[in-house]
Order: sequence, then structure tokens, then C-alpha cells
Amino acid sequence: MDLLKEQSSYGEAIGLMAWDMRTKAPKKGIENRSEVLGVLSQKVHEIQTSAEIRSYIDELKGKVADPIVQKSLEEAEETYDKTAKIPTKEYREYVTLQSKAESMWAEAKENDDFESFRPYLEKLVEYNRKFAEYWGYENHRYDALLHNYEPGVTVEVLDEVFPKVRKALTDLLQQIQSAPEQPDPSVLEGQFPKMEQAQFSEEILKKMGYDFDAGRLDETVHPFAIGLNSNDVRVTTKYDESDFRTAIFGTIHEGGHALYEQNIDDKLAFTPLATGTSMGIHESQSLFWENFIARSEGFWKNHYELFQEYAPVQFKTLPLSEFYPAVNEVKPSLIRIEADELTYCLHIMVRYELEKALIAGEIEVKDLPEMWNQKMEDYVGIRPESDAEGVLQDIHWSGGDFGYFPSYALGYMYAAQLEAQMRKELDIDPCIEKGDFQRIKAWLTKNVHQYGKMKKPLEILHDVTGEGLNPEYLVEYLTNKYKNIYKF
Amino acid sequence: MDLLKEQSSYGEAIGLMAWDMRTKAPKKGIENRSEVLGVLSQKVHEIQTSAEIRSYIDELKGKVADPIVQKSLEEAEETYDKTAKIPTKEYREYVTLQSKAESMWAEAKENDDFESFRPYLEKLVEYNRKFAEYWGYENHRYDALLHNYEPGVTVEVLDEVFPKVRKALTDLLQQIQSAPEQPDPSVLEGQFPKMEQAQFSEEILKKMGYDFDAGRLDETVHPFAIGLNSNDVRVTTKYDESDFRTAIFGTIHEGGHALYEQNIDDKLAFTPLATGTSMGIHESQSLFWENFIARSEGFWKNHYELFQEYAPVQFKTLPLSEFYPAVNEVKPSLIRIEADELTYCLHIMVRYELEKALIAGEIEVKDLPEMWNQKMEDYVGIRPESDAEGVLQDIHWSGGDFGYFPSYALGYMYAAQLEAQMRKELDIDPCIEKGDFQRIKAWLTKNVHQYGKMKKPLEILHDVTGEGLNPEYLVEYLTNKYKNIYKF
Repeated sequence: MDLLKEQSSYGEAIGLMAWDMRTKAPKKGIENRSEVLGVLSQKVHEIQTSAEIRSYIDELKGKVADPIVQKSLEEAEETYDKTAKIPTKEYREYVTLQSKAESMWAEAKENDDFESFRPYLEKLVEYNRKFAEYWGYENHRYDALLHNYEPGVTVEVLDEVFPKVRKALTDLLQQIQSAPEQPDPSVLEGQFPKMEQAQFSEEILKKMGYDFDAGRLDETVHPFAIGLNSNDVRVTTKYDESDFRTAIFGTIHEGGHALYEQNIDDKLAFTPLATGTSMGIHESQSLFWENFIARSEGFWKNHYELFQEYAPVQFKTLPLSEFYPAVNEVKPSLIRIEADELTYCLHIMVRYELEKALIAGEIEVKDLPEMWNQKMEDYVGIRPESDAEGVLQDIHWSGGDFGYFPSYALGYMYAAQLEAQMRKELDIDPCIEKGDFQRIKAWLTKNVHQYGKMKKPLEILHDVTGEGLNPEYLVEYLTNKYKNIYKF
Repeated sequence: MDLLKEQSSYGEAIGLMAWDMRTKAPKKGIENRSEVLGVLSQKVHEIQTSAEIRSYIDELKGKVADPIVQKSLEEAEETYDKTAKIPTKEYREYVTLQSKAESMWAEAKENDDFESFRPYLEKLVEYNRKFAEYWGYENHRYDALLHNYEPGVTVEVLDEVFPKVRKALTDLLQQIQSAPEQPDPSVLEGQFPKMEQAQFSEEILKKMGYDFDAGRLDETVHPFAIGLNSNDVRVTTKYDESDFRTAIFGTIHEGGHALYEQNIDDKLAFTPLATGTSMGIHESQSLFWENFIARSEGFWKNHYELFQEYAPVQFKTLPLSEFYPAVNEVKPSLIRIEADELTYCLHIMVRYELEKALIAGEIEVKDLPEMWNQKMEDYVGIRPESDAEGVLQDIHWSGGDFGYFPSYALGYMYAAQLEAQMRKELDIDPCIEKGDFQRIKAWLTKNVHQYGKMKKPLEILHDVTGEGLNPEYLVEYLTNKYKNIYKF
């Protein structure tokens, strides 16, 4: 545990340096800082793959009574295996390739030039195919990659679930697009000073139960939340003075991530368990607050008046009946990070199908641009005119992150499934309408937050809901929501 | 050099964590953070005292052509010896004692209860006497401690210099106090909003040549400057809306420290040489800008108009002829950190004489309160009514920092001596009056900043001025300045 504490300490230092680089650090210091980050990351890597940690695992695993020590050992073994199974030479080459590929991707996206990025992406795919073989899997090679982000979720699970969701969402999308009632988002336009957006966002964060004595809110370019430890969990946001939705829904989203990290049991401090259990469960928390709470009608019934206090004068006369549909407009778009609550999952499915086939060796990198565009047309209904707006838009693949995307869609499904269960146990509508989020937060802490990595994602889902992954809850939630807004 | 780079990387991480704790960190995260700092500090300690570093020193010292490598080895050896000469058990006990004593001191100061702190201070003195013996010295035991802060400066030097300065300052003080013309500091009173103080301070920092792309300015409780690397040197300040002098002179003071760290040669990056060479030389840089520049008549001739733009309305009608004397008022006070430019060194001499005698074993801790009060009366002319305002006022001794205080007075003398030399080479008055500080900064960088720890303090002084430490320059500077202000 001392060794894991040392590792965790480097982790906190690295986390603070990363936060600082993205919020406060003067630009000229970045180069030096990157080298410092390299030295500390190397240190973490050395511990994770040390003979010392291996010997503890071998000697103690399954033989300790303390469940925290036991789970920590399991976590350490996962990490050990993940790296130790890859030959050192290949691992080093891959790290070099990653950083090179990321800058090549940025340039290729800038120039809309997929061909210049293609050789790098091909190598990244090749390494990931090899790594998946090293790591091992039962049925599908892609499972080995999925495991890194969402342990327990496999191609078998996703291929069962995703098509159902896709069918439901595309049907819904058609109904929405041909609905007689269409929201008018132009009513949201107008100059909204940063300071007032920040003040409103902070009020909502406080109401959610985000503890400002154990965190802070800063400005950045690409917003994120980061848990340095459970008593220092920082939120960042970005302000667009011509579109308040960026900051307000963005802050609430990151606030959902932050609530998770703030409410992990203190007993897990300095162990590898003191963080969210998976990408997907993390996303379920941010999406729950962003969509299920802050984009709900009940929320605005209560908070619209507060919003109007901070908002530009035009909102004083805008009725809630126009405001609420406008912030929930569904509009197919090319860019994932700009997608609405309904089409977002369709963007993910495009990526999932492509990367699964890539890793399986069923398609090749050269096939991607055309297949991307075709799938976008089939699922979302619009076709990119350029690769910059298509296959080049996301950073993930350039860093070798295959298997990551499905977590976003899983986050939606987890959130819907958790919310449905919460409704069985709690009368949440009055809480939302009164802005009394304490019981909601307490429910999430009791059922999700406190465990950190003590439970795997599907274990949490099962313990809370008594079910495995069930996409019906998401479909039902979206159907009800949009039927109400679009009146079909 | 790789090992020293690793050490320096931990140093940067520790520096950032310290800055963060004093400016941004949420209070609940401090406990966890302190443990992380402990882990990283332990790592630095391990490297500094490792058999590996010892073997490099033994094998390479004096045999490498590269002067940076050679000086780095010497620096590493200094650090190695400093720790390795102390038995591990004693070192550990001392570290525990330090942290205990610091909190006992804070309580004792709060309660004006020297007796409760006395046993801790006695132990600290005892350890320091022992450590001085372990480290070794030629003439005076206290020299071994002085060496940690101001290598090359000894009791012999200080006992030659300090009495001369003391005599001159106490004479000057008498003349000032009986002068017919007395400044009226009440003209400076009034509400000066923080934001405007910050804007004025920032403008001056920029004029000094402080690079905001390689630094930033934040608020804190106890202001400091910190160099994480030469491209990331941060200044902090504190705003008192009822007394602008705190923030404005404070920011310029810290800005002087920061200019030093920003202008260390990039070639020294990631070596132990990439910081100021001593406490005293560092203080010479901050005092040069704070006093010789920003409290000079020439500076205000040029900047008073700018100041008036930011200052409260009353300053619009306050003539410079009243403002300038008011910001240079000499007024004996009990508290060192509130002392003016003239009496400050007298406060230091009280401390120097007491700690020198303590370490030599000529006096004991129980004698301190009475001796402190007597010396304050003899030198500064006022006698503390309580130990809280007397011997308990400073944190230094509670952390075991004996030998540190003289650096402050040395900083004044170095600054005066450097300024006198600068005047021989540069016509600086027009620069100050025009607010054109570029050539002044360039002179300091060329003669002081760039070297980092490549040169020892007295080596810098000698290379620049051709002389050893000479207190005459400080005496002359103060005499001229106050004759002009107080008209005697």
C-alpha cells in the first residue's frame, strides 16, 4: 500500500500539472513542464511494472482479508498485465508513435488531408491489433480494447444493444423531423456576459451539492473535470458570450463528473481505487446532471426565474414555453461534440462499427473516409463534405484510443437505467422542481459514487437495478421527452 | 545529469503544489496534498543522499570539462554532505521537531506565551549547535549555519560590517527624528480598490521587464515569488484596500525576485544551478527594484501621473512633493516586516547578535526575551511590551532556520553596492525618470541573473564591483536619500 501510495502521489502531482497547463500556466513554461510530466509519468510506469509490485501481487492476491487491499491488488495486476504483456521495445515505439501521430492528426485536420495522417493511423491500428492479441480475449479481438475502458462490456453485449438503440433513435429522429411543432433556437441568441454565466453556473453547482471547499471552477479551452483527490476536484468550463448553452450545460456536465470524484469514500484515498470505475459510469454521472436534470422541464420550471436574473434582458420576456423546447432542439449535425441529446449516440455508433471492424481486420484505414460518410448519412441523415468534418474530427484515434467511444453511448444508457431505478425509490420530480438536489445526490453517492473502483461498471448497474445493461430505459426516456416537446 | 534532472523535476512539481496551496487549492484538499508533498520531498531527499549521486561526485568531480556539469557536481556534493553528515536518526527526529515546533510557535505567538515555546526552541538550538559541529567550520560555530544561506559570508565578515552599518543607521535615525521637516503619511490614507491596485502593479511589472508569458500574478496571504523554471516564474501579492503600499511595493519587490529567476541562463535548466545563488543576492534584486527604483524620487516623477489614473480621487490633488516623502517615511516600529527601508537592517542586527550568541552557547534560550527587548530599545529605540511583538514575531527560528536573518541585511548592502557600480557604467537616472528600465534589467541580467548558482554571492559581488562586501554604499545611499527628504 505504501508503494501504491507513492504511485498515487505522483498521480496527484501529474494531475495538478495537467490542470495547471490547461488553466493557469504561462505559455513559455509549457516545454519545460512537459519534460517534468515525462519524468513523473516514467516513475509511475516504473512502479506499475516493477518486480516489487509483481511480487506483492503473486504473494498476496486472494489471501488478504481487507477488501480494499484485495481490490487494490487486482487493480495493480490489471495495470501490470496491461503493460508487461507488451514487449518493452514495442511499447516504446508505440509511445513515440502516439505523440507523433497526434500532431500529424492536428495538422491533417487543419488541412483536411486524410492521406497525410493515414500512414500513422495504419500503424496505430496495427499496434492495437497486436496489443489486443497480447492482452487476450475470448470472442472478439476488439473486446481486449473495450476492456481498458469498460471492463465487462464486450462486442457481444454492444452488438445486442446498439442496433436496438439505433433503430429507436433513427425512428424517433424521423418523427421529430416531421413533427408539426418545431422549437425556435433563435430565441436563445444574444450577448450573455461571461461573468453572469459564471455566477449562474456556480449557483447551480452549489445546488447540485458540488463542494467549493473541495474544488474550484476555472476557465479553459477544452473543458474537463479532474479529481486530484476526493477533497480537491476541479471543474473547468468555457464561456461563449453569444451562446450560454456551452458554459451552463458544460459546467453542469463537468459538475456531474466532479460530484462522482468528490464523493468517493475517503477510505480509498491513495489507492488506485480512488477514482471513477469506468469511462461509461463517469459519463453516466455527467449526463444524468446535464440532461436528465438540467435539460428537464421541471428543472427550468424552478430555475428559469433565477436564470432570468443573470440573463440578458431579452429573456425577461421570453416565455418558458419557448425557452424549454429551444434548449432541447434536435438537429442532426456533423460534429459529435456539438450533437444534441438524441443524435449523440448515433455518432458513437458510426465510430464503434468502424473501429470494431478495423481492429478485427475486416476493413482497412484507407476505407475509413468513405465508410464514415456513408454511415453518417445512414444514421444521422447528413453527409460530411470534408474529412475534417468527418473521420478527422476526433482526437481519440490519433492517440491510439480504440475502444473508448462506446463508453459515451454506454454513459447515456447507464444514466437512463439509473434514473429509472431512482424514480422507483425516490419521488424525484418534486426535488427537481424545488431545486432540492440533496436526496438525488445522496442516492447517487450511496449507489455509485462511494465505491470508486471497488465495483466494476456492470456490477454497479446490477447491484442498483437488478438488471444487466438494458437500453429500453434510454429509449423510453427519449421517446417521452421528445413526444412532449415536439408533440407527435 | 539525468539523475539531477529527475531531482529537478520533482522540485518543479513540489514548487507547483506549494504555489497552488498558497493561491488556488481548495482548503479541504490540503491534508491530502501535504502527504503528496511528503512523498515527493522524500524522493528528492533519496536522490540527494543516494550512493549513486555519491559515486558520480567521487568519480567525476574536478575531471569534467563542462563547467555546468562541474558546478552541478559541486552543488550536489554540498547538498549530499549537508545531509549525509547528520546521523539519519537525528535528522528524522529533527524533521519531526520542526513541524511540531512551528505549530507550537504559532500558538505561543497567538497567546503571547514564550514559555510554552521555550522547550521546543531549546531543542532546535541544541540540534543546530550539533549540526554545525557535524558540518564543520573554521572560526565560529555559527559560520556553519551562515554557509547554508550565504556561502562565503562568515561571522568575521559580519562583525566587521554590521557594527559600522548600525552606527551609521542609528545616527541617521536620530537626525531624521529631530529633523524640522516630517512627512505626513496620513495623506496616503483612503480606499483604493483592489482591481485598480492590481492594474497599476501589473503595468509596473511589465515596465520592469517581467514577462507575463513566462509568469503570472495572483493573490495570496503571505506574498512570494516562485520560479518553477525560468519560463514559469510566478509572483503573488496581497491587497490592502486601505493601504496601497502593501500591494504596490510588495508586487515590485516580488517582481525583483521574479526577474532574477526569469533571466537565469536556459542552459542551466534541469540542473541544481537553475535558481538564485543565495538568499542575500536574491534579496538584493527584490530590494533594488522596491527601494532603489520604486521608492526613488525619479521613479515617482515619471509614474505619479500613471498612479493617479488608478488611485482614488484624493490623489489627484495631492502634490508629488507630499506624496514622495510620505511613501518614504521613517518610523521605528516593533515588527520587522513592517519596518521602513532605514530601520529594517537594525531589526536584523538584533536577530543576528542573538542567534550568533545562542549557537555559540554564550547565551541560552531563556535569556532571549529580555535581551531582544533591550536590543530593540538600544538599536531601534522602542521596546516591545509583549513577546508576541518581540521575540515571537518571526517564524524562522521555529523552523530551525538559524543563519538566515543576516541575508536580509546583506541584500540591502549588495543592492547598494551593485547600484553604485551600475551608476558608474550607466546613466540610470534618466532611465528611471523615463520609465525605461530595459537597460537596467539588462545590466542586472548580464551581471547577476544569468549565472544562477554558477557563481557564489561574493564572487558575483567581486566580479561586478571589484570589491568585497562594502557597507559604505548602503550608508551613503541612505544618507543622501534621507537628507534630501528630511532636509537636515
